[in-house]
Amino acid sequence: MRDIVMFGGNAHPGLTANICSHLGVEPSRSTVSRFSNGCIQVQLEANCREADVFLIQPLVMPVHDHLMELLQMLDAARGASAARTTAVIPYFGYARSDKKDAPRISIAARLVADLLHTAGASRVLTMTLHAAQVHGFFSVPVDHLNALQILAGHFRGRNLENTVVVSPDLGRAKEAAQFARMLDLPVAAGSKRRISDTEVVIDAIVGDVDDRRVIVLDDEIATGGTLVELIRRLRDRRVCDIIIACTHGLFAGNAIDRFCAFDEVSEVVTTDTVPRPAAIQSHPKLATLSVAPLLAEAIRRIHNGESISSLFTEPEWIKEGENES
Amino acid sequence: MRDIVMFGGNAHPGLTANICSHLGVEPSRSTVSRFSNGCIQVQLEANCREADVFLIQPLVMPVHDHLMELLQMLDAARGASAARTTAVIPYFGYARSDKKDAPRISIAARLVADLLHTAGASRVLTMTLHAAQVHGFFSVPVDHLNALQILAGHFRGRNLENTVVVSPDLGRAKEAAQFARMLDLPVAAGSKRRISDTEVVIDAIVGDVDDRRVIVLDDEIATGGTLVELIRRLRDRRVCDIIIACTHGLFAGNAIDRFCAFDEVSEVVTTDTVPRPAAIQSHPKLATLSVAPLLAEAIRRIHNGESISSLFTEPEWIKEGENES
Amino acid sequence: MRDIVMFGGNAHPGLTANICSHLGVEPSRSTVSRFSNGCIQVQLEANCREADVFLIQPLVMPVHDHLMELLQMLDAARGASAARTTAVIPYFGYARSDKKDAPRISIAARLVADLLHTAGASRVLTMTLHAAQVHGFFSVPVDHLNALQILAGHFRGRNLENTVVVSPDLGRAKEAAQFARMLDLPVAAGSKRRISDTEVVIDAIVGDVDDRRVIVLDDEIATGGTLVELIRRLRDRRVCDIIIACTHGLFAGNAIDRFCAFDEVSEVVTTDTVPRPAAIQSHPKLATLSVAPLLAEAIRRIHNGESISSLFTEPEWIKEGENES
Amino acid sequence: MRDIVMFGGNAHPGLTANICSHLGVEPSRSTVSRFSNGCIQVQLEANCREADVFLIQPLVMPVHDHLMELLQMLDAARGASAARTTAVIPYFGYARSDKKDAPRISIAARLVADLLHTAGASRVLTMTLHAAQVHGFFSVPVDHLNALQILAGHFRGRNLENTVVVSPDLGRAKEAAQFARMLDLPVAAGSKRRISDTEVVIDAIVGDVDDRRVIVLDDEIATGGTLVELIRRLRDRRVCDIIIACTHGLFAGNAIDRFCAFDEVSEVVTTDTVPRPAAIQSHPKLATLSVAPLLAEAIRRIHNGESISSLFTEPEWIKEGENES
Amino acid sequence: MRDIVMFGGNAHPGLTANICSHLGVEPSRSTVSRFSNGCIQVQLEANCREADVFLIQPLVMPVHDHLMELLQMLDAARGASAARTTAVIPYFGYARSDKKDAPRISIAARLVADLLHTAGASRVLTMTLHAAQVHGFFSVPVDHLNALQILAGHFRGRNLENTVVVSPDLGRAKEAAQFARMLDLPVAAGSKRRISDTEVVIDAIVGDVDDRRVIVLDDEIATGGTLVELIRRLRDRRVCDIIIACTHGLFAGNAIDRFCAFDEVSEVVTTDTVPRPAAIQSHPKLATLSVAPLLAEAIRRIHNGESISSLFTEPEWIKEGENES
Amino acid sequence: MRDIVMFGGNAHPGLTANICSHLGVEPSRSTVSRFSNGCIQVQLEANCREADVFLIQPLVMPVHDHLMELLQMLDAARGASAARTTAVIPYFGYARSDKKDAPRISIAARLVADLLHTAGASRVLTMTLHAAQVHGFFSVPVDHLNALQILAGHFRGRNLENTVVVSPDLGRAKEAAQFARMLDLPVAAGSKRRISDTEVVIDAIVGDVDDRRVIVLDDEIATGGTLVELIRRLRDRRVCDIIIACTHGLFAGNAIDRFCAFDEVSEVVTTDTVPRPAAIQSHPKLATLSVAPLLAEAIRRIHNGESISSLFTEPEWIKEGENES
Repeated sequence: MRDIVMFGGNAHPGLTANICSHLGVEPSRSTVSRFSNGCIQVQLEANCREADVFLIQPLVMPVHDHLMELLQMLDAARGASAARTTAVIPYFGYARSDKKDAPRISIAARLVADLLHTAGASRVLTMTLHAAQVHGFFSVPVDHLNALQILAGHFRGRNLENTVVVSPDLGRAKEAAQFARMLDLPVAAGSKRRISDTEVVIDAIVGDVDDRRVIVLDDEIATGGTLVELIRRLRDRRVCDIIIACTHGLFAGNAIDRFCAFDEVSEVVTTDTVPRPAAIQSHPKLATLSVAPLLAEAIRRIHNGESISSLFTEPEWIKEGENES
Repeated sequence: MRDIVMFGGNAHPGLTANICSHLGVEPSRSTVSRFSNGCIQVQLEANCREADVFLIQPLVMPVHDHLMELLQMLDAARGASAARTTAVIPYFGYARSDKKDAPRISIAARLVADLLHTAGASRVLTMTLHAAQVHGFFSVPVDHLNALQILAGHFRGRNLENTVVVSPDLGRAKEAAQFARMLDLPVAAGSKRRISDTEVVIDAIVGDVDDRRVIVLDDEIATGGTLVELIRRLRDRRVCDIIIACTHGLFAGNAIDRFCAFDEVSEVVTTDTVPRPAAIQSHPKLATLSVAPLLAEAIRRIHNGESISSLFTEPEWIKEGENES
Repeated sequence: MRDIVMFGGNAHPGLTANICSHLGVEPSRSTVSRFSNGCIQVQLEANCREADVFLIQPLVMPVHDHLMELLQMLDAARGASAARTTAVIPYFGYARSDKKDAPRISIAARLVADLLHTAGASRVLTMTLHAAQVHGFFSVPVDHLNALQILAGHFRGRNLENTVVVSPDLGRAKEAAQFARMLDLPVAAGSKRRISDTEVVIDAIVGDVDDRRVIVLDDEIATGGTLVELIRRLRDRRVCDIIIACTHGLFAGNAIDRFCAFDEVSEVVTTDTVPRPAAIQSHPKLATLSVAPLLAEAIRRIHNGESISSLFTEPEWIKEGENES
Repeated sequence: MRDIVMFGGNAHPGLTANICSHLGVEPSRSTVSRFSNGCIQVQLEANCREADVFLIQPLVMPVHDHLMELLQMLDAARGASAARTTAVIPYFGYARSDKKDAPRISIAARLVADLLHTAGASRVLTMTLHAAQVHGFFSVPVDHLNALQILAGHFRGRNLENTVVVSPDLGRAKEAAQFARMLDLPVAAGSKRRISDTEVVIDAIVGDVDDRRVIVLDDEIATGGTLVELIRRLRDRRVCDIIIACTHGLFAGNAIDRFCAFDEVSEVVTTDTVPRPAAIQSHPKLATLSVAPLLAEAIRRIHNGESISSLFTEPEWIKEGENES
Repeated sequence: MRDIVMFGGNAHPGLTANICSHLGVEPSRSTVSRFSNGCIQVQLEANCREADVFLIQPLVMPVHDHLMELLQMLDAARGASAARTTAVIPYFGYARSDKKDAPRISIAARLVADLLHTAGASRVLTMTLHAAQVHGFFSVPVDHLNALQILAGHFRGRNLENTVVVSPDLGRAKEAAQFARMLDLPVAAGSKRRISDTEVVIDAIVGDVDDRRVIVLDDEIATGGTLVELIRRLRDRRVCDIIIACTHGLFAGNAIDRFCAFDEVSEVVTTDTVPRPAAIQSHPKLATLSVAPLLAEAIRRIHNGESISSLFTEPEWIKEGENES
Repeated sequence: MRDIVMFGGNAHPGLTANICSHLGVEPSRSTVSRFSNGCIQVQLEANCREADVFLIQPLVMPVHDHLMELLQMLDAARGASAARTTAVIPYFGYARSDKKDAPRISIAARLVADLLHTAGASRVLTMTLHAAQVHGFFSVPVDHLNALQILAGHFRGRNLENTVVVSPDLGRAKEAAQFARMLDLPVAAGSKRRISDTEVVIDAIVGDVDDRRVIVLDDEIATGGTLVELIRRLRDRRVCDIIIACTHGLFAGNAIDRFCAFDEVSEVVTTDTVPRPAAIQSHPKLATLSVAPLLAEAIRRIHNGESISSLFTEPEWIKEGENES
């Protein structure tokens, strides 16, 4: 049958290597040249004809350079007669632009989904979209994984007495509830309100958190502003221990130091959907779990035509992932 | 300039008449014939050439008959050389099918959005989609209105002391918070869990409701099963008065009686986005506010190329609506 | 190679079972849930990845529910990464809406063909479209079979002396002529005129029918109104025996009793492209021939990449079909 | 409002001039250059920006040169920013390729409809398609006129006693019946069978024609082979006078002489949807009625957004047409 | 795996036979019927289901008949369920219409690329497009070969002392430079100016040609007008020997005699991308090299999913081609 | 009629202001917010409903940020119901990626053209594409202007005796020839060869330049590497004076100093299609001509439906432009 050919963009070579190693497939090279006018040219350096091509690129900063790199890879693979081209986007940052909450803006998540289609993506493999509905923005089949099992696995076997899962935002409390049920814990949520582009206020925490230990669950942490605000509110409620768990740990600037400065914050658990500077990676309070085994297994199943939905009911791949990176 | 031509499908003739009357435009007739094999044929009975055509049809039961009627109206208007065709869908029931929460299902809201596009809709005017993200499922421009101002207007001037707005579901708590802020009230939410297709459990109510008066806000009430469950939980918390407010009051079967049977429920407020049987309409605890002035004003602005986003900052049209139907 | 995966909708489970049995393939389950607002959700309950999926659904009443069920099945199969999805529509009722014979109507057969394409049909397998041109309405490859050989087989070996094939309508006389030539018989046709939506007049019968035995051939019988009118005209011409043959026997209401009430009508022959109530099925004058062997053979050939056009020149599958259902 | 800009291709300059004259619009020039490799380049020689452009081109021989000329005109008009481009195709010859009556052929009428769409046609205005269903092959709005009123007008006021309308083919008897009803005459039809690509046999004439006068109605006459066969059958039935009426009089080679050689043929009536060599035009038995007033009126109404469907109920334009060309 | 099925249109049966022979595949028949109204019908006479279909048709005169034949073949193959359909167009004449150098013309190369896509081409295999950019006009993958290696091979081993490669036109000097480098020769170019549709002037020859031997390289020669003008200018510069090399030798009318009449012209080298009348083929100064081995090898690689880009770095196929036709 | 609404992106606010001032239209504001994950959100701050919207954005560095800004503006304008949206792209840098000159690369100019279409561009207005064929990459109407008249105007009235126009590259010599003819000068060209990504060699200069004065014409200057190489070759040929003229003066890094360091270079003439740092703008050898009057006039004509092709035959707008910026 058609072979798998794997390419990784420049956004996260470490993850590409990791996934390929789990798959037992050698990654193929792609080269990006930048012209003096700032335009780029991407060349795929392995034959793609009739192949089952996977292109790995999380949309991290510089987002638009990485997006254009991915779009050109997709177009090049199509022009090079790939049988099928799957965009593997472990972090789809534009998912946050999922509604028209101001007049005359683009629903950019839909726009980017359409751009990927235009560039030639036959399908998309992604993780933990900010809203599940973003799945419906794509015109091509999407496999949408999440890291809840991986994150929950991290806490299994621990003493979780007197612990509550807290979502920083009511709008995502559903996922926190799902996570809480995996660990048999109660759930609470912050009532977040955006004051301005940069300022967020948490009016209240709905649910019982007083004097408890807290696992904060979020999909994505960038500057950590919301989180700092949440931690302050939790302190007002005499919370004694805070663990922060998130799938996409972007940690812009000194984000991790900002919330680790609070004594109550004992641990930050995240995954490697996005790359992380070496400095941060060795942060004493930081634990990074790898999504590579999960993505590798999904790619293997996509290639072989096996069910993805059963991926979570028989998750043998989790054990390996735990110890990685 | 091009004229407005208005057609209403069979789903809600009363609303069509009401909107047309607010617009000062005579509705044009469309006729539906049903062949003996069950297929239908819709004929638009007014010239549509170069006209700005609006087709009003909420997707209520029988949903698929009403959907096909709308699709044929759209196709007929396009074939009849309409300059522009706007599907006015005050209630887009398929919006609830907005994510792939089980394997091998259709994200039917996206599918129906695509069907409307295929049939020839140039644009869509709708209200209170179950999730704001559904906006992004459409390939054509959408004007997405909501009835929060209309509902809030109903409570203005009342004594709302010791009152809290409650969302039956954490997943929609965001909208409840927005509504609560309009009335300067706090917010709470139920932590809903689906046991089976027909059974729902509310594990807990996050937020402070004990001994308070409650306004429950929901987007849509059909059988009212979730609501009954919520009312029970609220009674456990010694809530003294419950008002139910929702945009789309479908009230399937004896729904309204089911929750009005609770003494605590003093009022049910809804709108006319969907039609309502005469029997229910005169229910002593039921108040129906009309969205016709809002939709008429939106249609007028769409036709004239005026801003829709400013519709809520200068809502003179609300006053009229209040007293209607 | 890729496997066949068969699903049947709710329109005609018996035919699905029958086809699968001829193919030697176990049908996979699909489940339809109906929400309290009337919307449905279809779930395909077998892995479709890289499979050659066939979805069987004749568009019988309730037509639009069955259509939406089929559209969601198509969309779900696409989203579930089926390699190819064939809509098997033994009865495509909307084929009758094939022209614009009134102003501002939809050519609904084209519209539905486009909807199927939008929902993800890779190809269509259908039978006896009301007009052969409807084939051209589809953007995807269509295999268009007919049941003439099956019906003709029913009469082979009988004494057909002094018999004439009669088409109720000049517009379909071509097919009657083709059928007549299979049996070496002459042909005649009614000159039908539509008075109103429900009333039809046959002005004259062109061709020689006086004192003969008649086989009436029609593609579809619903209320049988045209047929009753034709029988009356045939009685005027002293026809001594009438056999009615049609592919799609919808038999709405008491249709079959209406024309069997005429003594001259000795037999009604039809197929199982559409389901039939048990009461009617045992009607003493009714013979039902199965199209399952034909459809099964077509599916087998589509799957294996064998010629469909040769299906009629070597019709071994017919013999089996004759004795069925 | 936007102006009408009219261009005619090289297929029928006379008709273009005639239509423009009826419209009171000066035709704009378009030039076709042929390169030495046989490719052509069409240049529209008038500004088209924001104009309502009409391109007149019947698809007569050399069909594919005329088709490419039309496609380039459409593309050029689109590229030149026309507001709307209507392909006026009085004779759409490919309409005869409307079904798949042999394996592995193209339904070329659908293909050409798609090519016109690809090239940029916003809409199509055509006449007397071989089958009404071909309307449904187009993805753009079509106005489909016929010449029955014009042809019927030719016979009004004559003594039509003992006359019958005959269709050469059962498959088109429907239209003959419609024409017959306009003149209050009975109808009959030939049962045509194709022996080979070039040979046709008429097995029988269904309906009463013995000793009558006959008006043969056909949509299109090319070689006239079918017609000669029909005339022979009519002579067998002692028909005393034959008038031939058709919309598209292609009269390939010596066609007109072939059937005028029969004494019974007293007149051939046709229209100017296709051009006619001068030699034939002055044939003593030939009468040509012009469709220019009809097409001009349709263009005027399309431009002004007036109803086309009412064109036949108030046909004042007919009177003028009668005396033309 | 899927089989190759090869069809050749009527434009160049000799090349089809030649390619098939190199591939070791029997060509399948396709039949073109012409109706009396000038329309054609193409039938593919071999089963195409799930096959890898290649359709060979250079777009030579009559260009539009050959184009329509190709479009119908593509559509028929798609309708007949081919797995993939590749249009093999050794000569794509419309490539010269690649820019909008006059107002209100079509960029016909893009238009034809779109028509091929509409008709169902999955991919295109072509040679020596007039401009490399035309590749980008196609929405489907294109393999764009050139004959430079084949032409250069013809000169290898010869004494090329004092020889210069001359491009007739500065606009194509780039390719001449590439060819010159293959042979280690210098390059020069004519500064061509178009006076009118039929008249061309070469103002000057930029580069050193005085008293040298010259190989003129052009992509396509039709009437040879530019060439005659160039030869005159070269004579002015006392050039002693002229060899003309071109890929597409159309040689319209007496083109070849026109420039062979000059004593300086010692040889004309071309390929068989286009057919050539027998009379010309035996012209004493004409050498024809076959592209069949190259196209056959490309088709083999496309079918097997091997790299096409490596085709030129290991050109074993060239040796065979040299001696052919 | 519909109003013009002008927005400028962040790439070149000065040009936007300049164009708007020539048009007499106030530019509307658009705001770009950057989220902490690097994604951006663009909001158009003026009502666009039914307006004729123009979005001005040359694709200069950071190219992909500016491209995404433009794509979001296009999408936002479409979603906000603009009647028409024109992307005004004075510098389309990706035009250089116009062919597949290496295996498995994207023809990025076509890709970006498709992205603009996907995002909602109704039409494009651009200047001096690197190759004229890039026009054909767009699916929407393009108005493609050039600055040759503006540049030529700069030299009119000067003594141009003994002067030759030199193109650095044979591949663009055509345009140099056109420019030379405007000034009645001869033309020459460098035979450029690319050694590696960063190194270029000019083998020879074809044409007579010895001891002459030279105007070098190029479409775009970035690092100026090719130019430096050309200047060296021209010095070898004892050229006495060099003026450099180009449309898109990107002048990356110290480009302008690199070639102005040669004494022979007396002047560098360019336009304001791209922004220029203040430092460079006041360079003593640099002259900048504005394209704003030309673009403003083109926008005016597009809006009013007047011919663009006549823009160059009656170029009154040039006079103003000369004296600007």
